[in-house]
Amino acid sequence: MRQPDFTLTAGPTMASHRVLAALGSPLIYDYDPAFLERFLDTERMLAEAYRTSGDVVMMQGEAVLGLEAAARGLVAPGMRCLNLVSGVYAAWFGDWLREYGAEVVEVRVPYDEAIDPAAVADALDRDGPFALVAIVHSETPSGVENPLGEIAPLAHAHGALMLADVVSSLGGTELAIDDWHIDLAVAGPQKCLAGPPGMSLVAVSARAWEAMEANPAAPRGSFLSLLDWKHRWIDGGRVAFPYTPSVSDVNGVHAALAELLEDGLEASIAQHDLAARATRAGVLGLGLELWPRSESYAAHCVTAVRMPAGIGVPALLRHVRERYGVMLSGGYGELKEKLVRLGHMGPAARSLNPLVAVSALGRGLADLGISVDVGAGAQATMEVLSGGPR
Amino acid sequence: MRQPDFTLTAGPTMASHRVLAALGSPLIYDYDPAFLERFLDTERMLAEAYRTSGDVVMMQGEAVLGLEAAARGLVAPGMRCLNLVSGVYAAWFGDWLREYGAEVVEVRVPYDEAIDPAAVADALDRDGPFALVAIVHSETPSGVENPLGEIAPLAHAHGALMLADVVSSLGGTELAIDDWHIDLAVAGPQKCLAGPPGMSLVAVSARAWEAMEANPAAPRGSFLSLLDWKHRWIDGGRVAFPYTPSVSDVNGVHAALAELLEDGLEASIAQHDLAARATRAGVLGLGLELWPRSESYAAHCVTAVRMPAGIGVPALLRHVRERYGVMLSGGYGELKEKLVRLGHMGPAARSLNPLVAVSALGRGLADLGISVDVGAGAQATMEVLSGGPR
Amino acid sequence: MRQPDFTLTAGPTMASHRVLAALGSPLIYDYDPAFLERFLDTERMLAEAYRTSGDVVMMQGEAVLGLEAAARGLVAPGMRCLNLVSGVYAAWFGDWLREYGAEVVEVRVPYDEAIDPAAVADALDRDGPFALVAIVHSETPSGVENPLGEIAPLAHAHGALMLADVVSSLGGTELAIDDWHIDLAVAGPQKCLAGPPGMSLVAVSARAWEAMEANPAAPRGSFLSLLDWKHRWIDGGRVAFPYTPSVSDVNGVHAALAELLEDGLEASIAQHDLAARATRAGVLGLGLELWPRSESYAAHCVTAVRMPAGIGVPALLRHVRERYGVMLSGGYGELKEKLVRLGHMGPAARSLNPLVAVSALGRGLADLGISVDVGAGAQATMEVLSGGPR
Amino acid sequence: MRQPDFTLTAGPTMASHRVLAALGSPLIYDYDPAFLERFLDTERMLAEAYRTSGDVVMMQGEAVLGLEAAARGLVAPGMRCLNLVSGVYAAWFGDWLREYGAEVVEVRVPYDEAIDPAAVADALDRDGPFALVAIVHSETPSGVENPLGEIAPLAHAHGALMLADVVSSLGGTELAIDDWHIDLAVAGPQKCLAGPPGMSLVAVSARAWEAMEANPAAPRGSFLSLLDWKHRWIDGGRVAFPYTPSVSDVNGVHAALAELLEDGLEASIAQHDLAARATRAGVLGLGLELWPRSESYAAHCVTAVRMPAGIGVPALLRHVRERYGVMLSGGYGELKEKLVRLGHMGPAARSLNPLVAVSALGRGLADLGISVDVGAGAQATMEVLSGGPR
Repeated sequence: MRQPDFTLTAGPTMASHRVLAALGSPLIYDYDPAFLERFLDTERMLAEAYRTSGDVVMMQGEAVLGLEAAARGLVAPGMRCLNLVSGVYAAWFGDWLREYGAEVVEVRVPYDEAIDPAAVADALDRDGPFALVAIVHSETPSGVENPLGEIAPLAHAHGALMLADVVSSLGGTELAIDDWHIDLAVAGPQKCLAGPPGMSLVAVSARAWEAMEANPAAPRGSFLSLLDWKHRWIDGGRVAFPYTPSVSDVNGVHAALAELLEDGLEASIAQHDLAARATRAGVLGLGLELWPRSESYAAHCVTAVRMPAGIGVPALLRHVRERYGVMLSGGYGELKEKLVRLGHMGPAARSLNPLVAVSALGRGLADLGISVDVGAGAQATMEVLSGGPR
Repeated sequence: MRQPDFTLTAGPTMASHRVLAALGSPLIYDYDPAFLERFLDTERMLAEAYRTSGDVVMMQGEAVLGLEAAARGLVAPGMRCLNLVSGVYAAWFGDWLREYGAEVVEVRVPYDEAIDPAAVADALDRDGPFALVAIVHSETPSGVENPLGEIAPLAHAHGALMLADVVSSLGGTELAIDDWHIDLAVAGPQKCLAGPPGMSLVAVSARAWEAMEANPAAPRGSFLSLLDWKHRWIDGGRVAFPYTPSVSDVNGVHAALAELLEDGLEASIAQHDLAARATRAGVLGLGLELWPRSESYAAHCVTAVRMPAGIGVPALLRHVRERYGVMLSGGYGELKEKLVRLGHMGPAARSLNPLVAVSALGRGLADLGISVDVGAGAQATMEVLSGGPR
Repeated sequence: MRQPDFTLTAGPTMASHRVLAALGSPLIYDYDPAFLERFLDTERMLAEAYRTSGDVVMMQGEAVLGLEAAARGLVAPGMRCLNLVSGVYAAWFGDWLREYGAEVVEVRVPYDEAIDPAAVADALDRDGPFALVAIVHSETPSGVENPLGEIAPLAHAHGALMLADVVSSLGGTELAIDDWHIDLAVAGPQKCLAGPPGMSLVAVSARAWEAMEANPAAPRGSFLSLLDWKHRWIDGGRVAFPYTPSVSDVNGVHAALAELLEDGLEASIAQHDLAARATRAGVLGLGLELWPRSESYAAHCVTAVRMPAGIGVPALLRHVRERYGVMLSGGYGELKEKLVRLGHMGPAARSLNPLVAVSALGRGLADLGISVDVGAGAQATMEVLSGGPR
Repeated sequence: MRQPDFTLTAGPTMASHRVLAALGSPLIYDYDPAFLERFLDTERMLAEAYRTSGDVVMMQGEAVLGLEAAARGLVAPGMRCLNLVSGVYAAWFGDWLREYGAEVVEVRVPYDEAIDPAAVADALDRDGPFALVAIVHSETPSGVENPLGEIAPLAHAHGALMLADVVSSLGGTELAIDDWHIDLAVAGPQKCLAGPPGMSLVAVSARAWEAMEANPAAPRGSFLSLLDWKHRWIDGGRVAFPYTPSVSDVNGVHAALAELLEDGLEASIAQHDLAARATRAGVLGLGLELWPRSESYAAHCVTAVRMPAGIGVPALLRHVRERYGVMLSGGYGELKEKLVRLGHMGPAARSLNPLVAVSALGRGLADLGISVDVGAGAQATMEVLSGGPR
């Protein structure tokens, strides 16, 4: 089957040539000194991207591994947790918390809205104290971004550990682990870093390590264990891995981080912001509606578009892929048939890729008989792109 | 730091250009139809390499993930297990079995010997019945290969499930999942397949699925869950993944399996056998001793060499890497200082790579003042290679 | 400096991953049997793409080398040649013919028109006989395509050798060496084949070989010599090269031809036709004029756009490259400041690449204060693309 | 057909991953600013490798193109030339000089000896004056290296232009264009630079340019013209190419030069020297004879081995390639059946590659019934390698 010409999805997303070349570089032994050097260098860059002076852990397995490891590591039976739910992923995370025995209180908003920091403050005051507050920074399934920078300090001020799913936000929007007092964060390299989809990039604060050490339920001697990395890799002087790292994935993440930091974190965020604004303008130009109720909390990584009634999303995506060679994403979970997502992460946030996404969606809908204004969509997209990054 | 010129290790091992090109091919969406096609094709080839008509599961995470998933999936508290221990990995596996609540009986031999099928038959008769028999086919840490083809049918005849760690044997030595009645096997792509080190390649029999379904302790809704793959991916008609597969790793494994099957499984096994014989002849020619007490059970994937007393293995490996650009492996776990391992897997099993390994080891020892016959080692290696595969 | 995001130029043009992987595959000896096999396979595919059962010669050097070799090989002092001039390249070719001593008659049209076969017939009748007729099939500098299929048979019927510059037409438009009686054709791999820019792909008829053999002025013992390839490579049984072939370039051309033929020559031509039609519709939608006076002879490989007075083409291209990451081509030679060229060759002829070219040009002009309708351009482009290949 | 495992030939030779990745990087337009920057950077590095502050020209076509361009550019009919012949290539070069009308005097030695500077001084005194002295620095076909550093200043002192074929010496042995007063030098990237085999890397002194400008026979308006590069590219301010450069080849040469200069020119020369010494020791250890009569002038790039009577060289090479996957080179031209050449250039000069070449040759001969001491050859090779670069 023919490969896609454009991958403008919710991730995995298309990677730069540099990342691909790194993925395709010779496989070497994990204890080769050249690999050890590269691994350490990757950790150093990851911490820089996270703006943390704390520890980072690079687990081998997509971000769900890191999230499960984080939840299992921190949650002890009976622990009181505040889970902030504005989308599918946060809802699932709540299921995990409950399964691991936590007593969970939730702040919930509809999946097309963001969490209000005031509501969090209320919950902390009213229902606290909590040992843990959990949030999804950027809800990829619905393109909603929560104000983590306002919420995390609240949690911290109330003495709770702050656990943040930053899978699709790292590199694409503001994020400051230390300044915001985030204790445990998990990112994926296959989103705004535009790297390979096989790792969990975790930041862990000293407080989070203490909590895990004190938690008898935290996994130990398990592929799910963050503590194994602490005990064997970090405390052991960074000479022995608890598990064989994926040499190729680390090579890919190394290149992705190097590219990010050489361009500059701020420049990358500005580029994602430009692409997101252009895409939203294009979608509105087509005559469609955004899924998020307000642009103020639309995500930097993907733009979720509310589908007109009667559109079969899978058929639409199949048509766009077949006729135009453009791969877009549909909804996820319970939103599967309600929206289409246009990704703008990494290289897909550059150049005229937002125009390609908007036009493929618009013309695809037109082909299926939906009335959209393809020209106005394109014009609006290009007008924003013409202005450049803010 | 300069990259190594030769990676002749216990794995990850050097990959072919075809595998590297696949790893470096464009990253696409996991639900792109081209990726779905490739994923299915990879599964089909994996089953062929495993010689099974049963299910295969490709988990994303090095083989330890698959092994933990297998153990957790099959073991219920109180279950009686027979663990066959001829090396470090099997010993660790026994720890897991006990941790998950099994009642474990072990057949143990020194780590330089292989398991005797007669001893297994005795144990099955004497201490049975067992619900599960566990074995490591090829003990990579010590270069010992157990006679799985004789042992697995015994387990099956006694009604036990047979769980085999075939991490470093698939593709390099005889292995027949269906004919030998193996219920659960876990391989790694970074050994004889010479692919990327980031996946667990699992074969599961119908009986093993039944056992997991019936086991309330089997992980569900977890990155460690084989059942999640069964329920969501297999039973769901192979259209939805429970976890995002690593597109690049799957691309790499696809290429590695395609190369294996195009060359032919038997040809690959013969090549590994030739390289192993040549390496052993070279080691003996140098005047050194093999770690396994008998060549009859020396592994196809690595040759473990007993180190003379007084050699600091890490210093030796560092010297060989620095002066000759050749990366070899030391021992592992409690064997760390006792042996050196020369890998001959995938491309490293081809051409004159065994000569490079033998000569680098020999000359490296000579450089450190150990008396070895470098010329005789090379001559013996070349003589075996001259004979070609059997 | 940042690499371009899109290369939509008059060639070299962006290549597929398969071609890039071939270019990046290991360099081997030119007399390695694997390379000899690949070289022969490339020749076989080239002949198939040329639709010829005659000889092909793959010289190492961009197409100008092949064209000079062809002209020097065929032209003897005093020879009467009919040169058909509708563009820059044909005019230059006439200079060569005269320099090598030919007596040259020319049929000339303005550079925004195509050669009329009736005018050729007239010239053949009126000014003949000619030993050689020369034409540029597709004038890349001005985006004009001449009706070679009608003209070549006329030349043949009048007993002349037909020499065709098909540098930018092979693979993108109809071309049939044998059926049309073309004696010598020279193509470049970096145009519609989307391969590397380092080779001359030459087709030579038996009559052309005879003419060269009989020509004492034809280069011999020279890098410019086609006869060297005939004598040493072809007549010698294809075992010895007169000059070291560029292993990497041949690898790249091999992949490009394989991709072309696997997709199908007709499918490739249809794809280029679709892209050309979409691009032209987009340009007209922007409110601009095409350079060719009639769409009936607009080229399949590039669309030349007449620039409004007062536009500095280099400044425009620089702006589009800097702000949008899109590289377009300007004019060439005496047309340098008069037009912009949007390339649609190989991968650039696929998917929404024509939209990217049209929109980058349109928005770029708008940024510089020129009134264009970016939305109408995009809409028109997408409408044609929606119809698919004819 | 299976690719070779080792390419240890007289060039093209195996390239590093970095060079391969550069060859496989995206093809971009030759007037893209990123490419122009890369082209200029490549020129700068080439001049540094040549140790010249004069001009360099990078022609697209293997080194024979550059040599022909140099000879045609400098030689005017009737010009008196001194040609120094110690091998096949120099003999052919003399044929060119005569063909272009020069009056040629030659100093000749058998092809297994080097030119004696005293003989050159004699010829310059006795038969001069000469306008041009021509030499092949490193005769790849016979593995003999001439003392260019002593000869070139003699030519210069006598007022002659010095033209040197340095195809296989640049990067592998001492070479100093300015200090030695070389006026025109031509190197190939596929030898000690271990780059792609598609370019001519030319160094031109001001005196050489003057001579070409004054020579009415020098090619102009031709792919063979160095003056075209001078007039259009250099004098035009390095903004317009006379011919389309091969983007992929330039990318490859860029990477090869970067690698050379980052490692250091002296380190590279020392590495080639080590590999050559080790290979010669190995050959002698096998019980064979070197082709050069004295090791003092054996080449740094390849080691030519005199074949015992009765050996069919092509059959030997075929056997070694088939059974061991190692590609070696035979003789060339009239030396075809008399010798085998073991290449040690670029990556092939590193690590244990000399051992692989020596052992493949030795064991291959043994397989054919020739008595050689494979062990002694290996031992001797390793002993030299153990000593490291001088």
